[in-house]
Amino acid sequence: MPYEFKVRRMVEFCDTDMAGIMHYSNFFRFMETAEHGFYRSLGFSVVQGTLDPRLGWPRVHASCDFRRPLRFEDVVEIHLLVTAKRDKAISYQFRFRKLEGDKPQAEESARGALTIVCVSHGRDGTLKAVSIPSDIAARIDVAPSELLHNSAVDLKS
Amino acid sequence: MPYEFKVRRMVEFCDTDMAGIMHYSNFFRFMETAEHGFYRSLGFSVVQGTLDPRLGWPRVHASCDFRRPLRFEDVVEIHLLVTAKRDKAISYQFRFRKLEGDKPQAEESARGALTIVCVSHGRDGTLKAVSIPSDIAARIDVAPSELLHNSAVDLKS
Amino acid sequence: MPYEFKVRRMVEFCDTDMAGIMHYSNFFRFMETAEHGFYRSLGFSVVQGTLDPRLGWPRVHASCDFRRPLRFEDVVEIHLLVTAKRDKAISYQFRFRKLEGDKPQAEESARGALTIVCVSHGRDGTLKAVSIPSDIAARIDVAPSELLHNSAVDLKS
Amino acid sequence: MPYEFKVRRMVEFCDTDMAGIMHYSNFFRFMETAEHGFYRSLGFSVVQGTLDPRLGWPRVHASCDFRRPLRFEDVVEIHLLVTAKRDKAISYQFRFRKLEGDKPQAEESARGALTIVCVSHGRDGTLKAVSIPSDIAARIDVAPSELLHNSAVDLKS
Repeated sequence: MPYEFKVRRMVEFCDTDMAGIMHYSNFFRFMETAEHGFYRSLGFSVVQGTLDPRLGWPRVHASCDFRRPLRFEDVVEIHLLVTAKRDKAISYQFRFRKLEGDKPQAEESARGALTIVCVSHGRDGTLKAVSIPSDIAARIDVAPSELLHNSAVDLKS
Repeated sequence: MPYEFKVRRMVEFCDTDMAGIMHYSNFFRFMETAEHGFYRSLGFSVVQGTLDPRLGWPRVHASCDFRRPLRFEDVVEIHLLVTAKRDKAISYQFRFRKLEGDKPQAEESARGALTIVCVSHGRDGTLKAVSIPSDIAARIDVAPSELLHNSAVDLKS
Repeated sequence: MPYEFKVRRMVEFCDTDMAGIMHYSNFFRFMETAEHGFYRSLGFSVVQGTLDPRLGWPRVHASCDFRRPLRFEDVVEIHLLVTAKRDKAISYQFRFRKLEGDKPQAEESARGALTIVCVSHGRDGTLKAVSIPSDIAARIDVAPSELLHNSAVDLKS
Repeated sequence: MPYEFKVRRMVEFCDTDMAGIMHYSNFFRFMETAEHGFYRSLGFSVVQGTLDPRLGWPRVHASCDFRRPLRFEDVVEIHLLVTAKRDKAISYQFRFRKLEGDKPQAEESARGALTIVCVSHGRDGTLKAVSIPSDIAARIDVAPSELLHNSAVDLKS
């Protein structure tokens, strides 16, 4: 069962700000690109496919530590790792590494985290946390702890 | 009956790009701010309120001529003018003027246009153009032609 | 010396996503709106004014806990509090409260945090952390700890 | 000499709005993706590479006609065509076609246009239109008129 996923994305001109670097809010958009690509790699979509349309996946927590700026036309590898899986929630870690040629740099540009919950959309617009459907939960594993911790020092040092 | 509306908005840091000016796509977001403010000033919302929830207002045309860049912390007045009202569609013009102190500059920074259509959302996701509800259409007038043309020369010269 | 700042902002149509709520990345844009408004209230700008143009204020950490969704045309009060001030860095907390009428709700929609560092832009594009200019540091205080903790329970419970 | 370029891009969740479709401002971002990819295909970048860093390429005109909405996870082909090349300006047309399987649909989802000018950035922040560098101009051709007109009927009908 997969516990990780990698995707590459180029920093577009409109992702930058007047400081000449990618605006920090766009790291959160790139995380979502990796998350949704992970779901597609598992054979479902957050919106269509095997999911009941009344389910949603809002975020309850998002964070990011920024170490090196990304710039226009940088290509970045976003490495998603599943850090926790609970009845109603999944947590992810995201490692951003800029490519040099075709290989990601050893050092991370940023490291992010997301926790999402599975919710049911009520007719009145309310959201209620529900168990993740078993056929989805069964396809997602948690990354081994040694993998989750082996490059943490790099970012924090 | 109103045929114009003015709103002011500050250029945020995240609206800029690495060229140091507001990214051109954000002029289209600012136009929508003026359009939706216009609807609120008439007592309805594009989403809630007196509208049947199955109506939508997608754009069929959008354009903008850019004359002077806008920069971080510039405050801009967006002047909406109704240029045409048809059974199923409304057309707007938008004039962007940067404020100096509390007054808009004579020269426009940009001039944009939008044409929106009223659509009904079918259960299958299809969109069908329908007549604008009469209680809404009755509240919107078309700007006098002398008003629509008196500063066009400025932008085009 | 000020240690807090409040600003109000309306959720625009383009801030929403197909789930019908404000996209989570836009909370980080709203935090920046409050941060930059705070600087303006102190008499300087992150870009212009009393600052040497070679200084920048990149983020090294950003996080947000989301409790209740924000929707189109919601007006939200963003309450910035200074949580830490160090030689080269400042940390902020942001409390999002939706307005009911003209008053913020007791419950928070979200609570965020940012840590920014003061950097000098080298000619070669490198960024180097430097001490916050004393005339700026002298104008910013840290919020009293009782203020920082008195509603944390609300969000976490 | 090339006069066209094609690129594919997926509609991300954050590109959608509460109407469930791609927000209209994002079509302008997608046009820029195609434009910048075109430049890269010619061996230069709007920001780096063979260009003098003091040159910029602001837009003076942008427009788009929207015919069919794009939705989350749609993959769209953006077909750039050079419609005019003048001493200081280039005009482009952009045709958006959604993919079915691996092939673009016959019908266009949208058709856009951009006119950009080559400017020199003065030390005082002013922008002055200048001739496009000859080594760049020499690499760009104008599309044959029959190509520019053969599917216009489709969009307008």
